[in-house]
Amino acid sequence: MAAHFRKLALIGIGLIGSSIALAARRQGLVDVISIATRRQETLDEGHELGLGDIYTLDPAEAVRGADLVILCAPVGTYDALARAIKPALEPGAILSDVGSVKEHVVKVVGPHVPSGVSFIPGHPIAGTEHSGPSAGFAELFAGRWCVLTPVPGVPEEHTEKLADFWRAMGSSVECMDAAHHDMVLAITSHIPHLIAYNIVGTVADLEDATQSEVIKFSASGFRDFTRIAASDPVMWRDIFLTNRDAVLEMLGRFSEDLSVLQRAVRTGDGASLEAMFTRTRAIRRSIINAGQETPRADFGRPVVAPPPPETNVVREHGGGDDA
Amino acid sequence: MAAHFRKLALIGIGLIGSSIALAARRQGLVDVISIATRRQETLDEGHELGLGDIYTLDPAEAVRGADLVILCAPVGTYDALARAIKPALEPGAILSDVGSVKEHVVKVVGPHVPSGVSFIPGHPIAGTEHSGPSAGFAELFAGRWCVLTPVPGVPEEHTEKLADFWRAMGSSVECMDAAHHDMVLAITSHIPHLIAYNIVGTVADLEDATQSEVIKFSASGFRDFTRIAASDPVMWRDIFLTNRDAVLEMLGRFSEDLSVLQRAVRTGDGASLEAMFTRTRAIRRSIINAGQETPRADFGRPVVAPPPPETNVVREHGGGDDA
Repeated sequence: MAAHFRKLALIGIGLIGSSIALAARRQGLVDVISIATRRQETLDEGHELGLGDIYTLDPAEAVRGADLVILCAPVGTYDALARAIKPALEPGAILSDVGSVKEHVVKVVGPHVPSGVSFIPGHPIAGTEHSGPSAGFAELFAGRWCVLTPVPGVPEEHTEKLADFWRAMGSSVECMDAAHHDMVLAITSHIPHLIAYNIVGTVADLEDATQSEVIKFSASGFRDFTRIAASDPVMWRDIFLTNRDAVLEMLGRFSEDLSVLQRAVRTGDGASLEAMFTRTRAIRRSIINAGQETPRADFGRPVVAPPPPETNVVREHGGGDDA
Repeated sequence: MAAHFRKLALIGIGLIGSSIALAARRQGLVDVISIATRRQETLDEGHELGLGDIYTLDPAEAVRGADLVILCAPVGTYDALARAIKPALEPGAILSDVGSVKEHVVKVVGPHVPSGVSFIPGHPIAGTEHSGPSAGFAELFAGRWCVLTPVPGVPEEHTEKLADFWRAMGSSVECMDAAHHDMVLAITSHIPHLIAYNIVGTVADLEDATQSEVIKFSASGFRDFTRIAASDPVMWRDIFLTNRDAVLEMLGRFSEDLSVLQRAVRTGDGASLEAMFTRTRAIRRSIINAGQETPRADFGRPVVAPPPPETNVVREHGGGDDA
């Protein structure tokens, strides 16, 4: 079944919601897009960007007559949203979302889904560290995976239609159990973010003078962590509140492994260190081979041009940048 | 004093050594480049790439008549190298290096530096995750910082000349005490690498099926860590063996902070989580403003093109990528 919807309702219009609006429009997947946001300011921004056709602060209004509804707001708002849209959902509509946790979504939204509405929670494994309606772009989902966790009883053709929607925006699709999703994403996403937030927080606690040096010399490794530690604080607060058990489980494993590494450093066990570091190189190669990472050096960061050869710097004796 | 040297000797021709060779040549900073490596294979590779003028497996031969000598080999080899080149170093020559630790270098090489030779250990804060002679490029040092830690007694004009050499290759230069360098770099570089190695190692320990899912869904955060965890295992083994105290100190702080974060997750303390995550966003902004990071989303990773709008995927009922 080709993926075409009459009316797509986007509840929330941040990075993901705005990217869906742009991609769905570009790929000709929808006739009408209705957008609901919590704040007028965000709605105005979406309107200025021309992301939709209908703009409203009332989620029920956005949802009325929609055959595809996607929740793109922080998962902490889902309970209230599910209650608000319940009376407006059409029989035969597909209700989905893009949240980074799935068991919580099933638990919180599920009870409010009317019979006849197909509830297929989803999670596009895509994003940048930027937020808001102006951060979106139509190519965000291309080459990425999207996970769907349909609840029992959803007609298979509806799951396939939603899957085709995501494929038409460039994603590959995989269906799985919500609990399994949360465990895998704890490893691939939630713990990496927690660790990045932690190490950047450790730096933020340093004395000012040291912190300014750390910033200056951040190209030596630290800067790689700061990108995901610049991710939306509310979104991430909600993820850790709602995927607690899987996160704590993986954090436990991380900490055990860190103790082993610490011991190797403390005891000067060079052989173990070298063996550990050799093993990890292969993982990156696998990710590149799976098409989930650029093969370019340094993530493909732009290269700075050096000064032209003529401008050899001549300095007086005793001068310099810093001493 | 303009930075021009008659003969540059590079001991080691990996990513950094080869980049110095290319940049120094392009900027017209040297007349002759001699290269020494440990293995014939590497020497041949350097020769094929046309990195130098003289190629030898004997460091003393490379160093003879050189007015600038830069050690670009793993710091674990420095003791043997220092002894080997001592009889060949010219009075008035500058001896430097590019190692990621400085106190160890001062301690190990210092005793073998003849009087009349200026020993100015250095560390260009630049690199990629790639290794070897073919990984180098002339722009590597542009826009980056280079730290110099001259030992007491080195004439200031020699430090300035070496600083100008690095400036001509595009770097800013800062001089500091070797111990201070090691402490700051423990934060900006060594701990980030240790943490990245650890988290990638935790994944490498997972069962195969889970590991293949982690790789598939690695664009959700994990892949950012895998780059620096793909760094040269020997180089990093040596760093942790030689900067042990500073690394253990910073690791202690990291672990304390992680326990606080773990508690906030365990107790569902959303307010603390949100506050912590808000604070860290500002650090990335500072790094970008300091010119040490690209402002582009996602490190400037290349964007994948989505399928053209005509190829809406039509699937038969029940088909799909994975179920």
